[in-house]
Amino acid sequence: MRSMKKQMKLGAFLSVPGNHLAGWRHPDAVPETDMDFGWYMRLAQMAERACYDTIFFQDTAAVGGSDALAAGDMTRTRLSRIVKLEPTATLAALAVGTSHIGLIATATTTYNEPYNIARRFATIDHISNGRAGWNLVTSQIEDEAGNFNRDEHVEHALRYERAIEFHEVVTGLWDSWDDGAFLHDKASGVWFDAEKMHFLNHRGKHFQVRGPLNVARSPQGRPVVAQAGSSEPGRELAARTADVVFTAQTEIEAARAFYADVKGRTHRFGRMPDDIKIMPGITPIIGRTEAEAREKYEALQALLPDDVALSALARFTRGIDIFSYPLDGPMPDLPEANSAKSRQQLIMDMARKHNMTLREVARSVSAAQGHRVLVGTVDYIASELETWLDQDAADGFNVICSYYPGPFQAFSEQVIPELQRRGIFRTAYEGRTLRENLGLRVPASRYA
Amino acid sequence: MRSMKKQMKLGAFLSVPGNHLAGWRHPDAVPETDMDFGWYMRLAQMAERACYDTIFFQDTAAVGGSDALAAGDMTRTRLSRIVKLEPTATLAALAVGTSHIGLIATATTTYNEPYNIARRFATIDHISNGRAGWNLVTSQIEDEAGNFNRDEHVEHALRYERAIEFHEVVTGLWDSWDDGAFLHDKASGVWFDAEKMHFLNHRGKHFQVRGPLNVARSPQGRPVVAQAGSSEPGRELAARTADVVFTAQTEIEAARAFYADVKGRTHRFGRMPDDIKIMPGITPIIGRTEAEAREKYEALQALLPDDVALSALARFTRGIDIFSYPLDGPMPDLPEANSAKSRQQLIMDMARKHNMTLREVARSVSAAQGHRVLVGTVDYIASELETWLDQDAADGFNVICSYYPGPFQAFSEQVIPELQRRGIFRTAYEGRTLRENLGLRVPASRYA
Repeated sequence: MRSMKKQMKLGAFLSVPGNHLAGWRHPDAVPETDMDFGWYMRLAQMAERACYDTIFFQDTAAVGGSDALAAGDMTRTRLSRIVKLEPTATLAALAVGTSHIGLIATATTTYNEPYNIARRFATIDHISNGRAGWNLVTSQIEDEAGNFNRDEHVEHALRYERAIEFHEVVTGLWDSWDDGAFLHDKASGVWFDAEKMHFLNHRGKHFQVRGPLNVARSPQGRPVVAQAGSSEPGRELAARTADVVFTAQTEIEAARAFYADVKGRTHRFGRMPDDIKIMPGITPIIGRTEAEAREKYEALQALLPDDVALSALARFTRGIDIFSYPLDGPMPDLPEANSAKSRQQLIMDMARKHNMTLREVARSVSAAQGHRVLVGTVDYIASELETWLDQDAADGFNVICSYYPGPFQAFSEQVIPELQRRGIFRTAYEGRTLRENLGLRVPASRYA
Repeated sequence: MRSMKKQMKLGAFLSVPGNHLAGWRHPDAVPETDMDFGWYMRLAQMAERACYDTIFFQDTAAVGGSDALAAGDMTRTRLSRIVKLEPTATLAALAVGTSHIGLIATATTTYNEPYNIARRFATIDHISNGRAGWNLVTSQIEDEAGNFNRDEHVEHALRYERAIEFHEVVTGLWDSWDDGAFLHDKASGVWFDAEKMHFLNHRGKHFQVRGPLNVARSPQGRPVVAQAGSSEPGRELAARTADVVFTAQTEIEAARAFYADVKGRTHRFGRMPDDIKIMPGITPIIGRTEAEAREKYEALQALLPDDVALSALARFTRGIDIFSYPLDGPMPDLPEANSAKSRQQLIMDMARKHNMTLREVARSVSAAQGHRVLVGTVDYIASELETWLDQDAADGFNVICSYYPGPFQAFSEQVIPELQRRGIFRTAYEGRTLRENLGLRVPASRYA
């Protein structure tokens, strides 16, 4: 019986125009996938045909590398992820051309107001009939500060403190109206039942928000909340708030430890381990043979100049001048970071473990931003994913492609059927809402 | 030749579930038009079939009347415009089901950050292939303050000061990238031309924003900017920044004076009178005879209890306790307001001119929120609109209906054909972008 096997969740992380820093240069790559909405829609519909649980958009409210660009670093003009469509507007538009797939986007708690975020995601949940998800992050990119009235990035601990309170306000606002609050009673003239309306009256350190939200309770009760921080405060926040956790994990043992740790923390917040779906990112490079897959990977790496790779690595090496170190020397030690802490740690651990040079580290990070790269046949990739699933290293995976649309189409049309054949991935959507498909409960209102 | 006549612009102000405070109680009204996206889409498509230049959504980031609700005023439970879909997400979704009509929504400059607003409207402009518009306002509803960390509303003059700077930042960010900045040159590996990228480096009193925007230049160069303030600073802001001005005007002489005044101010800002399209709101009540139309109006008014009307009027009477005045006595004098100043003045002028009682004022304002109500036959309504157009009281009108969808369908299918017969309204869209249809130039980049 198929349902005896643990079922895999899959997200399509649409990292357009490509997550490999030189992926856009591939002859088959379509560079216009970054700004052309028609492509966003085609990719979302392709994902829906393949039964992915959700699509997902990362976000930053800045041109990445603005500091370096402002300082005249022309290497940056060879990095592709510079502009894109704002993800919340994009989700709303994609809701119209799709019917079952989840729609998750990142919005930072650092440079937004909770009332605005609560409204927008609740609205997307209404527009999509219950398919919206909010990836709650604290801003990771120092460049954002300059666009929001600041000279410097907000300090790490303070960002997390604000994020926790932000989440409390947003979920509180989502509970503003009970189901059935709107009576629409033409005879009596009564529009709503005041007993089913709730002022939040939140007064905290960072926010003072009265409510109620001016959006009715949404089809999922509350939109799904995703979270991607893996540092200590990131794990705490995830255990407390997340329905879905995105993470970068390259080694199964570390992934299993992360999985157990985050799920183990849920009890302290009155939650259950299964209330959180943990989904590491993977970048598939598929070949008919292992050798062909390896060739494809090398062909992508051949498109990547060392200086571009190093320039991208610099995002994770603030505090030292990475360009002053010899490319064939060891990866230098890094001072403690104020952002992307856990990604930085992952990179350092990889460098130490495999005794990598700075060049090798830079080129490896450029291939998948620290995510696991699976180079091999359909069978190999499916087996690896199944192993991680079975050994509780993951509940599913976020599929991140080197460029679009080719590798994404290949994973969707080749690997997914193999996962289905193995009985570990759906062949049709179980439900209509994202919560239903992820197997998540509808949260009770705090006023219930 | 048809084009010899001044052509009328038309906006569909979708004031769901109805602009008349008791409109939703009409037997034909569909109260679910406030939260059901399917209805939003049907209304937008109806508007597009009728060739309206644009749809338009007003917005407030609060439940209107929160203060009164918090104080236990149960009359408020009989007012219908309490919840709705957040308009920017809604515009993005409506872009997918339409192809020519403009998509304008309000977003306040008081409780947003300019980088976020610039991104979202630029994105909607991309998604819609050049049909986005931003209605720039300062917050008019005191209730919003409580949702954004404030005990009191921001002071009027300060709001306008912030709005001017906000506009400067947003339009500056829209100019971040020249056309053709993205080279996508696979051979050389160069993604963009740094010469065509512009840091804003704005440092003002309210904002410090470096830029560049992480969205490429949008199809209209810049989304259309609408403006709706009619106070002295509101007119200045409009002359300086607006492509479209929405206004409430009930008397042709006052409307002509407003029209001449706003257009006359453009020169001081290096602009031309025709760079601004002035569109007063109108609420049509259509009958086969004048008597039938009058009966329809009276039928709506019969659904409106006095206390509900008074409760709604209270929005414009802050500073006095309007409930303590006799309903059949004169309209009391009002202290100077901190919001909706010009609307308050319009109401006072109307009350004085027609020697109205408080009850009459409250019931009149409830019918159309201060906008002109046109009660009569198709021929009468078309003639009135044509007169205002010809006499330079308006460039067009924002059609606001008592409830949905009936009166909106009636205007679209009865009055618009009559306007077309008279040769003053299009029978097919002239262009693909909102600017093209409004007859507005694509603004040059500030870096051109």
